[in-house]
Amino acid sequence: MCRFLAYHGEPILLEELIASPSHSLIKQSQHAAEGKTETNGDGFGVGWYGERPEPGLYRELRPAWSDENLWSICAQVRSKLFFAHVRAATGTATTRANCHPFALGRFMFMHNGQIGGYRTIRRRIEALVPDELYHVRTGTTDTEAIFLAAASRGLAADPVAAISATLALVLQEMRRAGVTAALRFTAALTDGDGIWAFRWASDSAPPTLYYRQGDSGVIVVSEPIDDDREDWHAVQAGHALVAAHGARAVLRRMEPTVAFAA
Amino acid sequence: MCRFLAYHGEPILLEELIASPSHSLIKQSQHAAEGKTETNGDGFGVGWYGERPEPGLYRELRPAWSDENLWSICAQVRSKLFFAHVRAATGTATTRANCHPFALGRFMFMHNGQIGGYRTIRRRIEALVPDELYHVRTGTTDTEAIFLAAASRGLAADPVAAISATLALVLQEMRRAGVTAALRFTAALTDGDGIWAFRWASDSAPPTLYYRQGDSGVIVVSEPIDDDREDWHAVQAGHALVAAHGARAVLRRMEPTVAFAA
Amino acid sequence: MCRFLAYHGEPILLEELIASPSHSLIKQSQHAAEGKTETNGDGFGVGWYGERPEPGLYRELRPAWSDENLWSICAQVRSKLFFAHVRAATGTATTRANCHPFALGRFMFMHNGQIGGYRTIRRRIEALVPDELYHVRTGTTDTEAIFLAAASRGLAADPVAAISATLALVLQEMRRAGVTAALRFTAALTDGDGIWAFRWASDSAPPTLYYRQGDSGVIVVSEPIDDDREDWHAVQAGHALVAAHGARAVLRRMEPTVAFAA
Amino acid sequence: MCRFLAYHGEPILLEELIASPSHSLIKQSQHAAEGKTETNGDGFGVGWYGERPEPGLYRELRPAWSDENLWSICAQVRSKLFFAHVRAATGTATTRANCHPFALGRFMFMHNGQIGGYRTIRRRIEALVPDELYHVRTGTTDTEAIFLAAASRGLAADPVAAISATLALVLQEMRRAGVTAALRFTAALTDGDGIWAFRWASDSAPPTLYYRQGDSGVIVVSEPIDDDREDWHAVQAGHALVAAHGARAVLRRMEPTVAFAA
Repeated sequence: MCRFLAYHGEPILLEELIASPSHSLIKQSQHAAEGKTETNGDGFGVGWYGERPEPGLYRELRPAWSDENLWSICAQVRSKLFFAHVRAATGTATTRANCHPFALGRFMFMHNGQIGGYRTIRRRIEALVPDELYHVRTGTTDTEAIFLAAASRGLAADPVAAISATLALVLQEMRRAGVTAALRFTAALTDGDGIWAFRWASDSAPPTLYYRQGDSGVIVVSEPIDDDREDWHAVQAGHALVAAHGARAVLRRMEPTVAFAA
Repeated sequence: MCRFLAYHGEPILLEELIASPSHSLIKQSQHAAEGKTETNGDGFGVGWYGERPEPGLYRELRPAWSDENLWSICAQVRSKLFFAHVRAATGTATTRANCHPFALGRFMFMHNGQIGGYRTIRRRIEALVPDELYHVRTGTTDTEAIFLAAASRGLAADPVAAISATLALVLQEMRRAGVTAALRFTAALTDGDGIWAFRWASDSAPPTLYYRQGDSGVIVVSEPIDDDREDWHAVQAGHALVAAHGARAVLRRMEPTVAFAA
Repeated sequence: MCRFLAYHGEPILLEELIASPSHSLIKQSQHAAEGKTETNGDGFGVGWYGERPEPGLYRELRPAWSDENLWSICAQVRSKLFFAHVRAATGTATTRANCHPFALGRFMFMHNGQIGGYRTIRRRIEALVPDELYHVRTGTTDTEAIFLAAASRGLAADPVAAISATLALVLQEMRRAGVTAALRFTAALTDGDGIWAFRWASDSAPPTLYYRQGDSGVIVVSEPIDDDREDWHAVQAGHALVAAHGARAVLRRMEPTVAFAA
Repeated sequence: MCRFLAYHGEPILLEELIASPSHSLIKQSQHAAEGKTETNGDGFGVGWYGERPEPGLYRELRPAWSDENLWSICAQVRSKLFFAHVRAATGTATTRANCHPFALGRFMFMHNGQIGGYRTIRRRIEALVPDELYHVRTGTTDTEAIFLAAASRGLAADPVAAISATLALVLQEMRRAGVTAALRFTAALTDGDGIWAFRWASDSAPPTLYYRQGDSGVIVVSEPIDDDREDWHAVQAGHALVAAHGARAVLRRMEPTVAFAA
C-alpha cells in the first residue's frame, strides 16, 4: 500500500501540496493515517509537466522524508499538473525502476493497491503488455504492467474505458489462475491536460481515495493532506473521477465487469 | 533516537539476533516499541569481528527493512561479537558517514541518544577530538565525535572512565554554551574482546537499555527482541554494563559528574 | 561489457583477488584494459559460499572503486569459492536488480557479453524462462534471463550442455527476429562446488576470458589481475572451462549450434 | 579533480549545456580530456535559479552518466543561471554531502582543485569557518570549508577579494603546517545574479578553466563542451573571470599573496 497525490489547476510550487501541509505527502511517507501500512518508506517519485509534452520525473529509492533533493525540487518547480507518490512495497524490490509515477510519452500513471496473487501470475499480467511497449518496462511492479497494458487499449481516447478494460483482463487472469485474493485498485492517470482517478475493487474494500475541487484546481489524494475534512470528498467505490481539460471534476461509474463478461 | 543490539558469546549467525526474532532489530527499524520514534529508517549498520583484529562494517543509508544485502550478510556471517544499529536521524543528514557503528582500529562504537543543543555546540564537541584523530571523522554526528574524543581519553585502559570523562566534558560544553536541554546517552563499545554498554542522562530520562546474560553469551539491546520479558534486565540509569573478556556482565556506576567537577 | 572474476580453491580472503592485486577487479572497475569499455562503473556484486549451500550476495549500484562496504567485506570474508563482477551497462538500468552475480538456490551466475538486438527480443528471451522460475526474475538483464532459462535445462546435470542449449535457443530467437548483430558470451557458473566458465560467440569476436590453475586453486577472469602473463591462459573461443569438484580445470568444446540445428 | 560548468544568460534548458553537446558535462563524467582523471564518477550536482532567491539543488552520489533523474531534470528545468559539477574524489567520501555545488542563502559555489596536505590540516581549514556558519557544514570537503570561510569575508561585497583573502589564509595554514604540496584552485561562485570564476595556484600548474562569451550569455567550464575551439578562451592563471549583473565577462587579477603578506 502506498500514498499518492495528483494536482491540476493554477500553476503552484510542488511544495504547496507535497511538503507544506499539516499532513503532507512527505509526512504521510512516515505516518499515513488511512492506509494498511503507516510507513511508506520504500522509495518515492514526483512527476510534473512544464517545458515539454512529456513529464519530468524524479524518483528515488530512499524514503521521501529524508531526501534533500525532493525538498529542493518541490521548492523550485512550479507546475499546473503534477503527481507525487510514496511507496510501501508489497513484494517487489525497492528500486527506482519500481517507483511511481511511471511515464510513457505524455502520459503518467501511479497506483495504490494490489493484484491478488501477483507473484504467481506476473507473467500473465505482463502478457497484457503489447510487444511494441514491452521494452519500456524497466521494473517488476503490477502498476507498470497495468499502465503499459492500458496504453494499448485506448488510453488516449477514453481513459476510463481503457483502465476498466485492463482491470477486467487482469481479473480474468486472476480467475483463470485460481486466485481468490481480491483485486484492489486506486490509481491516477494524466495525459498532461486532464486527470483521471480510479477507485475500484473486486471485493468491498477498495483503498481510500479523496478529492478536493476548488476554483483554482483539483487535488486527488489517497488521504487528505490537511484537517479541513469538509472540503475533501471520498470518491465512491467503483467510480472514476474525471477532471479533463480544465473542467471541474465529475464522477463516472467504472464497469470493468462488463468488459470482463465480454 | 535509534535502536541497537550488541552480542558477545558463542559464535552465531548474525541473523539469529538481527533478523529472525519476533521483534528483531530489522523489525524495530519499522516498528520500535520503546523509543521516541517508531520508525528507524535513516540508515543502518552492522559491524562484526572475524578474520582480523579490526571489525568488518556494512553501513547503508537505506532503511534496514528493505535491504537485500543486509539479509544476505546476516545469513552468512558468523561471529562471536557483533553490533547492529538502525538509525532515526535527529538533525544530521542521512548518509553512510553518519551511520553507526563507527570503527577505529579494533574499537567499535554505537549510540542512541542526543546532546542537547548539538547543532549549536557541534564545534565545541568536535574540539574534544584530538588532532591526531581528527582526519578519521567522516560524518557530522555527535556519536562519532564522542567516540573519537573518548578514544584519546583512555578507552583501552578503562572504557567506563573514558566515556564518563568524555560525557563530563560534553556536559561542561553544554553548560558553557547555556544549553538547558538534557544530555541523554545510551551506547555500546567494544574492543573486539569485551562489551561495555552505557545508560546515563543529565536528567531523569535516559533512553531504555536492556541486557540478557545467558550461558552462551550476553546481548545488549535498546529494547528486547522477543517477548521473554523475564530474561531481559533493564540497565539501571547511571550505570555501565561491563562484559569483558568472557566474564559475565556486571553493572558499574558511572560518575561523569565527578570528572565534570574536576 | 563488464569484468568478472571467479575463484575456487583453498579458502582465501576475498580481498586477495578482488582488491589487492596490481590490476585487481576493483581497479578494473575504473581502468579495464581489454574490454570494449574502460570504465565498469554501473554497479558491482560479490557472491561467496560459506555457512550455507546458498551463496551470500552483496550487490550495489554504485561503482566498486568508491564503495567502503565492498572493501570491508573483502577484508573479512574468507571463502573457498567466490564470484565478483563490475558492470558496464549496455542498455539496461543501473539498479541492484541488474547487478551480477545472480543466485538461484545453490547456483550462481555472472556474465560479460551481449545478445544482439536484446532490446527488441527481450520478451522472446524471457519466454525461455519456465513459469516456475519466472517470479525469481527481479531485473531486466539478458544475463538473468539466460541464467533462469538454463536453470530448467539441466544445469545441475550438465552445465555445459545446459548453457549451450540455452545459447542455441537464444540464437534461434535472434534469427527468427531478423537480428543480424552477434551473440557474444563469456560467463561463469557455480553450484557451490565447481566452476564452469564459457567463451563463445556467433561471430569471431568473443570477449576475452583467462584462467590460472595453481596447486591451491583456479581463478577465471575477464582479464588478468596481475602482470604474470605467463601464468594466465586464454580460454579458447568456443570452449568451456570445467573445474568441477576439486579437479583441475579442463577445457571442453561448446556446441550450441548442434542444439540449434536440432 | 573534477569537471564543472557555469552558465549565465538567456534562460535555457539545462540539457542544452549539460547533456546535449558533443563533449557535454555528462560525457565528461565518463571521459574527461584535460583533467588529471578521466573518470569523474564520484557523484555530481546541479544547482539553478528559478522561483526563489535561493538556488534549487539536485546532488547525488551516483555517476552522472547513469542517472535517469539528472537527464529528466535537465530536460525540464529552464534557467538563466545554473551550475553543474561532476566529481572525482580526492580522499574524501562519496556522499551527497560532499557533492558540489554547495549553497548558502542565495550563493552557490563549486570547485576543482586541491589543498595540499588537506587531510592533515583539515581542522585548521575548518577553523576559518566562522561559528555562525559552522552548523551549515554537512560534508568534509575542502571546497565546502573554503566556501563557508569566504562567506564571512565579504563575499557579497567583493567576491574576488573574499576568495583571494581566503586562499591566502589557506596558504598560510599550509605553510604553518609545513605542507610543501601546492594549492591549486579553480572554482565558480554566484549570487544568483552574476558569475565569478577563479583560476589560481601556488605553483605553475593551476587546473584548466575556459569561458565562452556570447551575445546571449557566458559559459565557464573546466574544459570545452564542444569542438568550436576558437570560441573558448582560457582564463589566465592567477585571474578571476567576472560576469556580474548582465555585463560581459572581464578578467581581473587575483592577488591572494597580498592578503597573505598582510
